[in-house]
Amino acid sequence: MDYQSILNEIQRKVNATQSSGKVASYIPELAKVPPDKFGMNLCSVTGEEFCFGDSKERFSIQSITKVLTLSLALLKVDTAVWKRVGVEPSGNPFNSLIQLEYENGIPRNPLINSGAIVICDLLIDYLKDPKTDYLQFVRMIAGNDTIDYDQKVAESENKEGHRNRAMINLIKAFGNIKNDVEEVLDFYFYTCSIGMSCKELARTFKLYANHGCLHSTREQILSVKRTKRINTLMQTCGFYDEAGEFSFRVGLPGKSGIGGGIVAIYPNKYSVAVWSPKLNEKSNSVAGILSLELLTDMTGSSIF
Amino acid sequence: MDYQSILNEIQRKVNATQSSGKVASYIPELAKVPPDKFGMNLCSVTGEEFCFGDSKERFSIQSITKVLTLSLALLKVDTAVWKRVGVEPSGNPFNSLIQLEYENGIPRNPLINSGAIVICDLLIDYLKDPKTDYLQFVRMIAGNDTIDYDQKVAESENKEGHRNRAMINLIKAFGNIKNDVEEVLDFYFYTCSIGMSCKELARTFKLYANHGCLHSTREQILSVKRTKRINTLMQTCGFYDEAGEFSFRVGLPGKSGIGGGIVAIYPNKYSVAVWSPKLNEKSNSVAGILSLELLTDMTGSSIF
Amino acid sequence: MDYQSILNEIQRKVNATQSSGKVASYIPELAKVPPDKFGMNLCSVTGEEFCFGDSKERFSIQSITKVLTLSLALLKVDTAVWKRVGVEPSGNPFNSLIQLEYENGIPRNPLINSGAIVICDLLIDYLKDPKTDYLQFVRMIAGNDTIDYDQKVAESENKEGHRNRAMINLIKAFGNIKNDVEEVLDFYFYTCSIGMSCKELARTFKLYANHGCLHSTREQILSVKRTKRINTLMQTCGFYDEAGEFSFRVGLPGKSGIGGGIVAIYPNKYSVAVWSPKLNEKSNSVAGILSLELLTDMTGSSIF
Amino acid sequence: MDYQSILNEIQRKVNATQSSGKVASYIPELAKVPPDKFGMNLCSVTGEEFCFGDSKERFSIQSITKVLTLSLALLKVDTAVWKRVGVEPSGNPFNSLIQLEYENGIPRNPLINSGAIVICDLLIDYLKDPKTDYLQFVRMIAGNDTIDYDQKVAESENKEGHRNRAMINLIKAFGNIKNDVEEVLDFYFYTCSIGMSCKELARTFKLYANHGCLHSTREQILSVKRTKRINTLMQTCGFYDEAGEFSFRVGLPGKSGIGGGIVAIYPNKYSVAVWSPKLNEKSNSVAGILSLELLTDMTGSSIF
Repeated sequence: MDYQSILNEIQRKVNATQSSGKVASYIPELAKVPPDKFGMNLCSVTGEEFCFGDSKERFSIQSITKVLTLSLALLKVDTAVWKRVGVEPSGNPFNSLIQLEYENGIPRNPLINSGAIVICDLLIDYLKDPKTDYLQFVRMIAGNDTIDYDQKVAESENKEGHRNRAMINLIKAFGNIKNDVEEVLDFYFYTCSIGMSCKELARTFKLYANHGCLHSTREQILSVKRTKRINTLMQTCGFYDEAGEFSFRVGLPGKSGIGGGIVAIYPNKYSVAVWSPKLNEKSNSVAGILSLELLTDMTGSSIF
Repeated sequence: MDYQSILNEIQRKVNATQSSGKVASYIPELAKVPPDKFGMNLCSVTGEEFCFGDSKERFSIQSITKVLTLSLALLKVDTAVWKRVGVEPSGNPFNSLIQLEYENGIPRNPLINSGAIVICDLLIDYLKDPKTDYLQFVRMIAGNDTIDYDQKVAESENKEGHRNRAMINLIKAFGNIKNDVEEVLDFYFYTCSIGMSCKELARTFKLYANHGCLHSTREQILSVKRTKRINTLMQTCGFYDEAGEFSFRVGLPGKSGIGGGIVAIYPNKYSVAVWSPKLNEKSNSVAGILSLELLTDMTGSSIF
Repeated sequence: MDYQSILNEIQRKVNATQSSGKVASYIPELAKVPPDKFGMNLCSVTGEEFCFGDSKERFSIQSITKVLTLSLALLKVDTAVWKRVGVEPSGNPFNSLIQLEYENGIPRNPLINSGAIVICDLLIDYLKDPKTDYLQFVRMIAGNDTIDYDQKVAESENKEGHRNRAMINLIKAFGNIKNDVEEVLDFYFYTCSIGMSCKELARTFKLYANHGCLHSTREQILSVKRTKRINTLMQTCGFYDEAGEFSFRVGLPGKSGIGGGIVAIYPNKYSVAVWSPKLNEKSNSVAGILSLELLTDMTGSSIF
Repeated sequence: MDYQSILNEIQRKVNATQSSGKVASYIPELAKVPPDKFGMNLCSVTGEEFCFGDSKERFSIQSITKVLTLSLALLKVDTAVWKRVGVEPSGNPFNSLIQLEYENGIPRNPLINSGAIVICDLLIDYLKDPKTDYLQFVRMIAGNDTIDYDQKVAESENKEGHRNRAMINLIKAFGNIKNDVEEVLDFYFYTCSIGMSCKELARTFKLYANHGCLHSTREQILSVKRTKRINTLMQTCGFYDEAGEFSFRVGLPGKSGIGGGIVAIYPNKYSVAVWSPKLNEKSNSVAGILSLELLTDMTGSSIF
């Protein structure tokens, strides 16, 4: 069965399933998204694309951005990143402060909120104009100059961001935030607010399926080793305290966002993005995980 | 032996002891206090006073203020206080966030930072001008109109208050802070910044040794029952995770502050305040605890 | 109002209250106790006694025994006890292992299960025949040679004691249990199985209201200082994670047991025991706490 | 470079490295193993083998056995396994009880001690003679009838197994152990005591590199889907709280044992076993991890 037929089958099957889950409500601006949006896009490393549904409609990528901020940080400071943040699964909800307190303000990994906030603090020291420079980096990887922040989302999240604000102040108390907390938070919320469609996300993440090499220009953006490490982190830490469950059902490295998007990559083969805003209790897209499970089941693709 | 002879003996013995401990350094303004300050003042409920050393020099009362904010809150909203904060010992350091996260933003008791911050939030809703009104209340109990905030201390603490800021944002995330976090923090830091001498503190806390009745005016400020409850809280929660040790050695209800002050009360008999800025690792005054232990040993006074 | 009238009033009021709570079910032998048993006995230090209801019927004293094992341990090894167990409130349920793991097998205090188990281990090293010697000690304080273990209860608890067995093995892993775990557990369960009536318990605990001096013989069993320390521990740690609530409502040092008994003491005045098997969710007797609250409210007795 | 040359290079490089780490001491019988043992064996799915050093000497496979007990449990009860144990990384040391208490006795995954103990309890219900049947299963996969338990190791561990005994009793208290705790522990310690050489281990784990199909007989022992799931678990949970670090450095699913052995698999390509008894502070073999990192670096093999 070819990829397009498989995607069509996924769309049919998922739509036939009694849908559960809830749209994220803690960021008011995101709560407005229609819950039944559903789209998917797959990019093969050979350059083909397959899709269905709302795959061209932009949504807030939220935590998916953490893979990109980490990539930029690795380009800027290399392994010095690992002095400020770990590489282990947290085994805890994405916004827990407990581990931070026990572990003296060193976040478990860069793909949970606390870790991404430390990465943003680090980037501020190395970027002339953090927001502009980061957007340029994302646009370059995406090969798309229309990609942009959503100021409304960023500000909505900032306004209600009590827990992230608690987190950054706790890290600051341990000395692992160097800049002003409000400046760092502002930058962090902007990085999360980027809007992309499944099509744009899948294209962007082709980089990670392609060993760090940009398909369009043949440019080696990330070294093979660095790409492998980022993929490893997506595998072990990309889904908060549901990382094991996702690996178990899907078997590919990936990253979810609270906007309902999920990206996953099959090294050497394809990158894929899916979007459905209704989340399970671990804050991952219900239909998104199911779609990817069907994809790897039907294609027999798995890194294991 | 009369009280004055006992106090003289305490002064002699404590001065002869190799002094350990460190002045609190996390509030820059407090770090400037000369470490060898040492004073004590005892007020009997019958109106006599005894003292030694630097007992008339003002210092930052810090957490001792929490007994007074709680008292005012009980006057304003009565038992509704206990919907927002608990009455159990925390068994944790004074600034831990772990319990807060496990217990959904309800602080264990009103004498730890998180609890006192919730009390300040609550007071803001019931006071016309919180800072002015609180100061009036403290002056009234102290019977002294010269008592005042120390703006420099309040602002020094606010500037470095990352952990308290983490705490209040976490509580806000759970919905247990109603007002703007910065407004609450500003008020909280001011309440902590009040300067008093041992003499002034001992006089102020005579209220709690006297079943809530103001000695000077015979006015019943706090009901007998309320006073008993506040004293109970001092007994079980007044010394963070050293509450048991203090009860064990001293056997009286009391409250310590990071400025090196400690107050204790012996119901029906006396209130006492001692000041020495060098703190043990639990942030309680080393010479302060020793002085009170000697006092209760020599006088045989203990509620047990 | 005299004590007997007050007790009668308590009996009337508590009986009129809608009763809640559940008989402890985790020890099968205890689950058989009729839930509506209710008795109380008060012994004044002057030698008078007052009672109502089932005050002469024996029940399993369970954790109340921990005060007595601690007393014997202090007599045998003095302050060396405090190298093996702390003096701080735990802030956790009575059977939690979490704190033990974080604190390397040193129990928070001797009145929680883990602490009492360490005390039993310690006693085994100092008693020729632990069970016989401990029973002799209890009989001596109680002034009653008919007091005895309840083998059925001890064995019932041993059989279902998975959590206590988990606890002692964890402490052993940290090196804080010296003897064979099964030998220690067997002794521990026997100490808990002692049966006493309210009358017998109140008489036994008169020791602690009387500064360590046995009323009947005028013998000073425990020094004044030691008695004060034990009373302090009852105050801060006698009711698991409800110690604050009990202090708050009753204001006296005390100790509860899962058999539904509670003892409390008012130094210099009286000891009191109450029994009602229905427990609240913190495993303390519902009617027991209410009775003691009424007692201190009506008599105005409080150490605070 | 061919595999044998690469292995030779690994041997040379690792031997040239200042060796750190300590032989596990908590099982007395294991503490006797000479610390400088070092061997490695790689089996390609095509049937070739490569090795160096002490690759034919048997050692105690310890926790590596957990992959095999899980495999047998999946064969016996299929997905019902997941009602008793989770699939998430623990983020905690291998022998922690904290998570167990918070999560009501459901271990995080079957590759940590608590999880493997539950698997053993489950197997006891489905095997006629657990020890004999499990050994038969391992011999069948290993294609080697001489593989055996080491009674001395099993009994040495049982005698000192206070923490595992704490763990199983805690799980029993939550009702997630059905059989007698001593019977389960005895079986568990025997499964851990199996002795194998690197050569034997690598051959045994070829099953997991080969999608569940036994190379020697072409028999499909585990379904492709089940094998994928087991491999996923090795990836995310095979190295206790160092799972991320191992993934990061090596990038292959694997499992370590406290005897100093590590197995890893590269699906479709090879299985590999390495042995060096000196462990880092996370209880994983120092030279073992380094050897596997060199292997995947030099061969460019990684699932990511």
